[in-house]
Amino acid sequence: MEALDRAIGQADAAGYVMYTSSQDADMRYLTRFRVGDPVVFFKKPGRPGTIIVPQMEYDRAVAESSCAVMTRGDAGFFEILEEEPDRRAALALMIARQVDGDMLVPPNFPLSLARRLEEHAAVRIDDGTIAALRAVKTSQELAAIRKTQRINEEALALALTCIRKASIRNGVLMQEGKPLTSEDLRRTLHIFFLERGYTAAETIISCGEETAMPHRTGSGPLMANQPIVIDIFPRHEESGYYADMTRTVVRGEADPAIVDLYDAVAEAQALGKSLIRPGVAGKDVHQAVVDYFADRGYATEKEGFIHSLGHGVGLEIHEQPSLGPAGEDLAAGHVVTVEPGLYYAGTGGVRLEDMGVVTQQGFDCFTKYPQELEI
Amino acid sequence: MEALDRAIGQADAAGYVMYTSSQDADMRYLTRFRVGDPVVFFKKPGRPGTIIVPQMEYDRAVAESSCAVMTRGDAGFFEILEEEPDRRAALALMIARQVDGDMLVPPNFPLSLARRLEEHAAVRIDDGTIAALRAVKTSQELAAIRKTQRINEEALALALTCIRKASIRNGVLMQEGKPLTSEDLRRTLHIFFLERGYTAAETIISCGEETAMPHRTGSGPLMANQPIVIDIFPRHEESGYYADMTRTVVRGEADPAIVDLYDAVAEAQALGKSLIRPGVAGKDVHQAVVDYFADRGYATEKEGFIHSLGHGVGLEIHEQPSLGPAGEDLAAGHVVTVEPGLYYAGTGGVRLEDMGVVTQQGFDCFTKYPQELEI
Repeated sequence: MEALDRAIGQADAAGYVMYTSSQDADMRYLTRFRVGDPVVFFKKPGRPGTIIVPQMEYDRAVAESSCAVMTRGDAGFFEILEEEPDRRAALALMIARQVDGDMLVPPNFPLSLARRLEEHAAVRIDDGTIAALRAVKTSQELAAIRKTQRINEEALALALTCIRKASIRNGVLMQEGKPLTSEDLRRTLHIFFLERGYTAAETIISCGEETAMPHRTGSGPLMANQPIVIDIFPRHEESGYYADMTRTVVRGEADPAIVDLYDAVAEAQALGKSLIRPGVAGKDVHQAVVDYFADRGYATEKEGFIHSLGHGVGLEIHEQPSLGPAGEDLAAGHVVTVEPGLYYAGTGGVRLEDMGVVTQQGFDCFTKYPQELEI
Repeated sequence: MEALDRAIGQADAAGYVMYTSSQDADMRYLTRFRVGDPVVFFKKPGRPGTIIVPQMEYDRAVAESSCAVMTRGDAGFFEILEEEPDRRAALALMIARQVDGDMLVPPNFPLSLARRLEEHAAVRIDDGTIAALRAVKTSQELAAIRKTQRINEEALALALTCIRKASIRNGVLMQEGKPLTSEDLRRTLHIFFLERGYTAAETIISCGEETAMPHRTGSGPLMANQPIVIDIFPRHEESGYYADMTRTVVRGEADPAIVDLYDAVAEAQALGKSLIRPGVAGKDVHQAVVDYFADRGYATEKEGFIHSLGHGVGLEIHEQPSLGPAGEDLAAGHVVTVEPGLYYAGTGGVRLEDMGVVTQQGFDCFTKYPQELEI
C-alpha cells in the first residue's frame, strides 16, 4: 500500500477512489472482499483503505474484508440523497466529502461517476499502480497460484486418461458406447474442479479443424489422429488465484504436418523460457519467438504465430506483465505463461503453455506436466 | 437497435462506442459474443453494430457473434501504432477514425480511454439506453430465463431432499455418518448445474445465526430446528441468462419467532406481487412492503427489512428495473424478483424470493416451487 500512497502523493491528490465490484480484480486485491455489486473503495495516505457498503453487507464486510468498513449511512449517503435525489450525483458528493480533495482513480473508473466527481474536485488517472503491485506476487500469492496449478495438472491427467481410454470407431473417440465429445470432457473437468473448490469455465477442448482457431472452445466428437488442444485455467474460489496451462495431443498417430508444428512450438517455448529474467522486456522475449518462427519459415501474421507469447496470471487470468508486442520489463515475482502456438487453417493448431515465476536466476516453471504429442 | 440509433441522434453524436469484455452484459447483449478481454464495439445510425477484435479472435467472432466484425488490422491499428506508440492513444485514434464524429458511450465507459477520445471529438454519456433495452425481454429471452428457472427448481428440490433425508445427531444434520455442511450442499448444487450446462457460484446456504446476514454465503454444519436460507441463482452458459430464487426452511421444528418472521415475509411477498403491473413505479412497490412491515412493528432500518424488495434479472443477476427505493416505472416484459426478508441478529433471517415477468395483466410468476417452512 506504500506504493499507492506514493502515487497519491505524486499526483498531488488527497486520496485514491474506486467504484466497482470484486469482479474487478483490483477491488478484490485491495479489499479481499467478494461483492457482486459495485462498492466505493477509498484510501487516503497513511490511513487504511476503506470500503463503503450497503447496510446489508456491513457485518459480512467486517468479517471478510482486509480493509476498514463503513456503511453508506455512516458516510452520510441518505442525508445527501434527501437534498440531491440523483443517485449518481449523491454518490459523487458522498465520495468527495470522504476524500476531501483531488482524487486519483484507476484507468477503468466509470466515466459517468468521474464527471460527477469533477464537480467537486479534480479527478486524475493513476495508470498502473495497482496493476504493477498485483503483478509482483508475494510468497502467499505464489503459493496460491502453485496450488491451483497442482490441481490443474491433476485435471489434465484426468482428461488425457479419458482420451487414452476411449475406444475408436470410424476415427471417432468412443466412451461407454457413445462418442466422447469436447462438451463431455469439458464437463468432466469442470466437475472435477468444483468438487475441489475451484471453478473453471470456457475450458478449451478443441479438435481437428477447430484447433486452427486459438480461442475456439470446441464442440462435438473428439477424433483419433487429429490434434486436440486442451487449455485449462481454473480459479481457486477461496483465494481467487488462477493457473493456466495448455497441452496439444493426438490420440493415435499425428499427421507429419502436426508433428512439425509441435516440434517448432516446443522449441520456441524452451527458447522463450530461457530468455526470461528480471530486467528483460516482455516484448523482447515475444519478439525473439516471433523471429525464431519467422527464421524457420512459419508465418507470424494472419496465420502461424498470431498471438502474444504469454501473459501474467493472478487474480485475473490475463494480467500484467505481458509477453507480447508491448510487454514491459520483467521483475522477480512476476508470474507469466509461456505459450507459443502455430495455427494453420486446413492443417490445425498446436499450442503449449507453461506458467511460472520470474526469479533472480531466471524462470521457475510451476508446470511439471510432461509434453507428449501422441498418446 | 432502433432505440440506440435514436439515442445517438438525440445526443447529436456520430456513433455509439463501448470498450469492454463480454463480462459486461451490455457487450454480450449487443454482440452475443463471448470474449474475456476488452474489445471495441461501435455503431453508427442505420448501420450494423461492429466489433473490432484481435486477429486471433476473428474467425470465432464471425462464427459466433451477432454483429459485424473487423480485425484491429482492418481498422488500421498497427499503422497507427507506428506513429503513436502509446497503445491507449492509438486505440483512441483507431476508434475516432471509425466513428468519425462525436461519440456516445455508456456510463461505465473507462475514464482513461474517454480522455484520449476527447482529444479527437466530444464524448457524451448515454444514460441507460442499453440497460432499458435489456430490461424489456423478448419472448426468446423470457424462454431462456424460464428455462433457467426450471433447472433452478430442480436444484432446490435436490437440496431440500438432502436436508430432509439427513439424520440428526445432537442437533446437527448428518449425511453418511458425517455432518452435512453448507459447503457440501453448495457443491452438490453446483455440480448439478454444471452437469446440465449451467453455472452457479456463491450460492447461499446459510444456517442459524448466519441467516441474519442476507448475503452471507454460509459455512459449516447445517442444524436441525434452525432456519436455513437457500438462495440460488444459476446462469445458463450458452444463453447467458440467469434465474434467481430463495427459500427458507427449517428441518424439524421452527422457533415461534422464525414462524412469525416467515408468515410476515410470505404475506409481504404476496402483497408485493399483487402490486406489480405496467406503469407502477418499482419504488412504490418497495415502499408498500416497507410500510407493511413497519405497520406490523418490524424494523426497516439496520435490522428487519434492510434491502430492496427486488431487482431485474437477465444477462446480469441484478439489472433493471429495481424494486427498491429508486425503482423506476415497471413495463410489460420486465423480469423481476420479489424477495422480502426480515433479519434479526440473535433470532435469524427469513427470505422468500420468486421471479417473474411484468405483463399487461400484472405479474406472471415463473417460480412454481411451493413455500413451506418446516420440512
